[in-house]
Amino acid sequence: MTNRIVQSPRRKSGIKRLRKLRTSIAEKGLDALLLSQPENLRYLSGFTGSSGWLLISGQNAILATDFRYVEQAKGESPDFEIIQTKQELRDWLPGLVSDLGWHKLGFEANFISYDSSHKLSEAIETKQVNLELVPTTGIAEQLRSIKEPEELGLITKAVELADAVFEQAKAIIRPGITEKEAAWEIEKILRQEGSEGMPFEIIVASGPNSALPHARPAEKIICSGEPVLIDMGARISGYCSDFSRTLFLGETDKSLQEIYNIVLKAQATAVERIESGMDASQADRLARSIVEQAGYGDAFGHGLGHGVGLAVHEFPTLGPSSSDSLADGMVFTIEPGIYLAGKGGVRIEDMVVLKNGKAKVLSKAKRDLLF
Amino acid sequence: MTNRIVQSPRRKSGIKRLRKLRTSIAEKGLDALLLSQPENLRYLSGFTGSSGWLLISGQNAILATDFRYVEQAKGESPDFEIIQTKQELRDWLPGLVSDLGWHKLGFEANFISYDSSHKLSEAIETKQVNLELVPTTGIAEQLRSIKEPEELGLITKAVELADAVFEQAKAIIRPGITEKEAAWEIEKILRQEGSEGMPFEIIVASGPNSALPHARPAEKIICSGEPVLIDMGARISGYCSDFSRTLFLGETDKSLQEIYNIVLKAQATAVERIESGMDASQADRLARSIVEQAGYGDAFGHGLGHGVGLAVHEFPTLGPSSSDSLADGMVFTIEPGIYLAGKGGVRIEDMVVLKNGKAKVLSKAKRDLLF
Repeated sequence: MTNRIVQSPRRKSGIKRLRKLRTSIAEKGLDALLLSQPENLRYLSGFTGSSGWLLISGQNAILATDFRYVEQAKGESPDFEIIQTKQELRDWLPGLVSDLGWHKLGFEANFISYDSSHKLSEAIETKQVNLELVPTTGIAEQLRSIKEPEELGLITKAVELADAVFEQAKAIIRPGITEKEAAWEIEKILRQEGSEGMPFEIIVASGPNSALPHARPAEKIICSGEPVLIDMGARISGYCSDFSRTLFLGETDKSLQEIYNIVLKAQATAVERIESGMDASQADRLARSIVEQAGYGDAFGHGLGHGVGLAVHEFPTLGPSSSDSLADGMVFTIEPGIYLAGKGGVRIEDMVVLKNGKAKVLSKAKRDLLF
Repeated sequence: MTNRIVQSPRRKSGIKRLRKLRTSIAEKGLDALLLSQPENLRYLSGFTGSSGWLLISGQNAILATDFRYVEQAKGESPDFEIIQTKQELRDWLPGLVSDLGWHKLGFEANFISYDSSHKLSEAIETKQVNLELVPTTGIAEQLRSIKEPEELGLITKAVELADAVFEQAKAIIRPGITEKEAAWEIEKILRQEGSEGMPFEIIVASGPNSALPHARPAEKIICSGEPVLIDMGARISGYCSDFSRTLFLGETDKSLQEIYNIVLKAQATAVERIESGMDASQADRLARSIVEQAGYGDAFGHGLGHGVGLAVHEFPTLGPSSSDSLADGMVFTIEPGIYLAGKGGVRIEDMVVLKNGKAKVLSKAKRDLLF
């Protein structure tokens, strides 16, 4: 008999993640890293409260949060030292860092506000703490972009749920219902079938509204002959899915049928030819060149896709000006679209995982032009 | 007959708001202000997209957004010049500001990230644009804190909706149902009765869970004899309500009944004695001193309340370290609470409007201890 404590898979993966983060911290020559981005907190510590800070060094793993979340933090993050904060970051951080003997602290420069970082710098100076604040970006996000098998399992469940509900959505989206009513019916099914809230507001955009890539469901009645763009997702144990299809309700304008086939071809080409090791901008090019050659380059105004995980938009970004690179284990959307103002738009979106160098589509929903 | 164009109330109030903002901009010696906080954008321009920038000077009212939202911006913000942006702020702002001849540009320091502001500063230097970036906080938020009659009307509708649904919620929250099921039933009614989504995730926290001020509804079954804390709100035309009650399901622990009466007295005292012109920290003190005198000061770990409007948390902040002042036209919550770890908690929350110097409670829901 030993006293060895059997750890849950959650705690085991938490330890692995912390080890990787500590390697990144050491590589950057930092004593410690300060994090506050909510999905990073959940990924590293399990904490799901909306307000808190992680402080990670080679030796320490601290979760600092206020009165409202202290009890929750103790339950969710048993491997972290929980500190209850009062007032603002500048009020409690300088003293703590001084006690711990850190001199070089990284912070999340694309998440902390100008104001918070400025006030913190001032407090460090006033209190004469010997501390250099170092702006960093994407340290935890890079780790999150490569999914562990368990994470991929949860993402796949979220994809399967969206797939199953989309089959029911096809029966809901009929002429006579409003976009808002349809979106609400779809949301109810998603949530009753197990989605934890909505990772983003469902889009049901019909006719000319489908030309707005981020349309909000309106009181508009869906009519026969219109294109209807649906963009929806589910969340399972924190992990998201993101999925779009464009339905044609009966005989639709020929030019919309034409753009449907271009978008379909652009998506299929990207799925087939994207490879691990490729620049994300090059992946975008695979689909964009097809849309451009067909003469609709200006009508495809957004990027090809984005990573999906605990956040519905995360690393990597697939777009013309992205500097990210694709790697095995990444999960992202491939979602070309063409939008003709005043007429209508088409987007086809699926999530893929990069495995053995190639993109594997996670969704099983059909992509053919349906009437 | 004249050619005078009849303007909608929305556009009329938009013009008034811009005039006030321009006065603030001039008072601070700025040529223009850059805004990106979503509720500020909606308040000033009507734009409801999730990504965009306003640039306001004495002469200009510009809404800059990307491809996804340009069509929407044209529809929602007819009094603004719409500019389609590509790439990041640093890529398009320096050239635009240079063309417009601005030399002193305010930005929202508590909303823009360290990284964005830093990159923008670098681009301004590289492109040799003669521009000083001036951090500002709360300029538009201060305007938003004083509600116009039309805004108060919408807030009142959101309060009435929450009131009406709470009456139904009392029948839903019975022993045997889980917190999650109850929260979902309440949400469905709120949304079917007209709430636009949920301004925040509904809290239904029973027994020991009610001691977590920001508990998330769990799979826990609600039991007889437990306290159940409900925190819920509605949204009507963008405006929120926020409301809490604590129900006792049958005969409950005497100490919880005791804290209920203390919280009730603290709330009633604050409602009665809060006055326009008072410091928000002094308002907090009115309630807190009662909780402290009863020996539960440490168990009331959050502020007394917060402004509510387009955002569910906005100016003013009512708390011990707030530097805000209260004024006629402000709408905020009064929500003292006492939380006993492992046992249970009580919070009573109502929204009030300051009118003729005094707080008027907007909610009609009863506050008596119910079994």
